[in-house]
Amino acid sequence: MPASGKRFALRIEYDGSAFGGWQKQSSPEVPTVQASLEAAIGKIADSPVKLVCAGRTDAGVHATSQIAHFENPVDRGERAWSVGVNSLLPPSVRVHEVFSVTINFSARFSALFRRYVYILYGGTIDSVLLAGHAVREPGKLDVEAMRKGARHLLGELDFSSFQAAGCQSKSPFREVRYVDVYAQREFVVIDICANAFLQHMVRNIAGSLLEVGRGEREPDWIREILLAKDRKAAGVTAPPEGLYLVAVSYPEDCGIPARAIAPPILDRLPDAG
Amino acid sequence: MPASGKRFALRIEYDGSAFGGWQKQSSPEVPTVQASLEAAIGKIADSPVKLVCAGRTDAGVHATSQIAHFENPVDRGERAWSVGVNSLLPPSVRVHEVFSVTINFSARFSALFRRYVYILYGGTIDSVLLAGHAVREPGKLDVEAMRKGARHLLGELDFSSFQAAGCQSKSPFREVRYVDVYAQREFVVIDICANAFLQHMVRNIAGSLLEVGRGEREPDWIREILLAKDRKAAGVTAPPEGLYLVAVSYPEDCGIPARAIAPPILDRLPDAG
Repeated sequence: MPASGKRFALRIEYDGSAFGGWQKQSSPEVPTVQASLEAAIGKIADSPVKLVCAGRTDAGVHATSQIAHFENPVDRGERAWSVGVNSLLPPSVRVHEVFSVTINFSARFSALFRRYVYILYGGTIDSVLLAGHAVREPGKLDVEAMRKGARHLLGELDFSSFQAAGCQSKSPFREVRYVDVYAQREFVVIDICANAFLQHMVRNIAGSLLEVGRGEREPDWIREILLAKDRKAAGVTAPPEGLYLVAVSYPEDCGIPARAIAPPILDRLPDAG
Repeated sequence: MPASGKRFALRIEYDGSAFGGWQKQSSPEVPTVQASLEAAIGKIADSPVKLVCAGRTDAGVHATSQIAHFENPVDRGERAWSVGVNSLLPPSVRVHEVFSVTINFSARFSALFRRYVYILYGGTIDSVLLAGHAVREPGKLDVEAMRKGARHLLGELDFSSFQAAGCQSKSPFREVRYVDVYAQREFVVIDICANAFLQHMVRNIAGSLLEVGRGEREPDWIREILLAKDRKAAGVTAPPEGLYLVAVSYPEDCGIPARAIAPPILDRLPDAG
C-alpha cells in the first residue's frame, strides 16, 4: 500500500496483566495489546491498519504512556480514534490522546528516548491489592548502594550482558541518559531513561541491582557485568509485573509532548531531564 | 458445637474485584471472600470452620484490613493460619496477621469502630491501571463543599436515608466518629469512621457527597437528607469499586492493634483519632 494516507499517533495506557505482551502473535488465542488495538482501529477505519509502537513491552509489562502510530487514508477525527476506538477495546487498554503527525513520523524510529520505571515493594506477605503491579522484595534494600551501582549504566555503552539471548538487535550499544533508584513510601523505584532498550534490558538491570540492594554484591559489580559483555555475568531477569513504560520523547516538531505519567501506585515521577 | 475450642482472629486483605462480596452465598458459583477463606482454613483445621467478620463488604468492595474470627479445637500455630492458609487461597485474598483471642471475642460484636475510604479520581478517560480500584469523576470536585456537607454526618444519628432497602438492621442509628473529605494527588478521598454502618451506607453517603462536590447541591442538603429519614431523599448509591475497609478497632485488651492500612494507590491515611 503506498504511503498516501494520513498518519496518526496515539498515546496508550494498558494493564499488562491482561496481555501476552505488545506484539501480535501468530497464535490468535494469546491476547496482545497490538492485536486488540489493530482490531478496534481497523473497525473505525473500515480497513486493516498496522500499528508501530515505541516500546514492544513483554507479557505482564504495563504502560502508562506508550506511543504507537498507524496510517489511514481517511481522517475520521480525533474523537473517532479515541472515544470510538475505546468503545471497541477490552477494559485493560485505553487510548488517551490522538496526534495528527507527518507521514515521516515513526513512533519507533523518531523516538529520542524511552523511560521505564521498575517498582519493588517491601513486606513479608504479598499484598493482593498490589499483585501484578509491583514486585515484592521482602527484605530491606540498600537504596544508596543500588543508586551507586546504577550510575555505572550512564552513557553510551555496550549492554550485551543485559541483553536477552533471543534479542534481534544489530547493535548492543545503547545510551542511558538518566538512571536513578529512590524510595517512595513503601516502594523502591528503579527509574531509567535511554535512547532505546535491548530485549529484557531493564528487567536484567533490575535483577542485578536487586542483588546489590540486598547486599549480595557491591555496587561496582554492575561495572564488571558491563565489561564482561556476557549475559551470564549479570543477575536474573526480574519479573515483568514491576515494569512500566512511562514516557517516550520525540523531537519537538513532532507535536507529541514528552510528559512522563506516573503509575497509579506512585505519587509522581521526578524530572528525568 | 460447644465453644470448647480456641478462637483466632485474622487480619485479611482482599481485592474485591474478584469476589461477589464477603458473605457466602447459597449459589456456590459466586466466589466470596468468606467461602474462600473457610475452605482454606477448614483444610488446615481438618474440620469445618465458620468465619465471622467485622464488615460484610459488598461485591467489588476491597479491604486492606478486614478482621474475622473463627474457632478450632486445636491451635495449629500462627504460621499454619497465615502461611498455610495463604497457600490454599486464590491470589486475590491474603491473611496478613493471626491473633489468638479469648473465647468471648467477636470480630463483629467486639468491634468499636470501622473505617472506610471511598476513592474518586479525575480525568476525562478511564485509567485502566486504576480500573476496579477507584471511581472516575470527570469534572472538578469542590472538596471544601463536600467536607462541609460531610460534617452533618458526625455524631449518633438516624441514618435511615442512607440505608439500603433490604438492610436487616434493627436500628437505623449509627455513630459517625470521624469523617473527612480531602484531595490527595489526583484523588478525592471520602474517609469515614463509625461504630458500625448500615448496608450501603458509605456508598449512599458517597453518592450524595458527589452531588455536593459537583455543585448540584448545597452542603446543607446532607442535613436535609438525614432529617427526611427516607432513602429517596439521598443521592444514588456510588459504585462499589471505590470503597475500601481500611481499619477495625477493638478494645485494647483484645490484643488487635487498630492501625489503618492505606490502599496502595493512596500515600497514607490521616489519623482519624
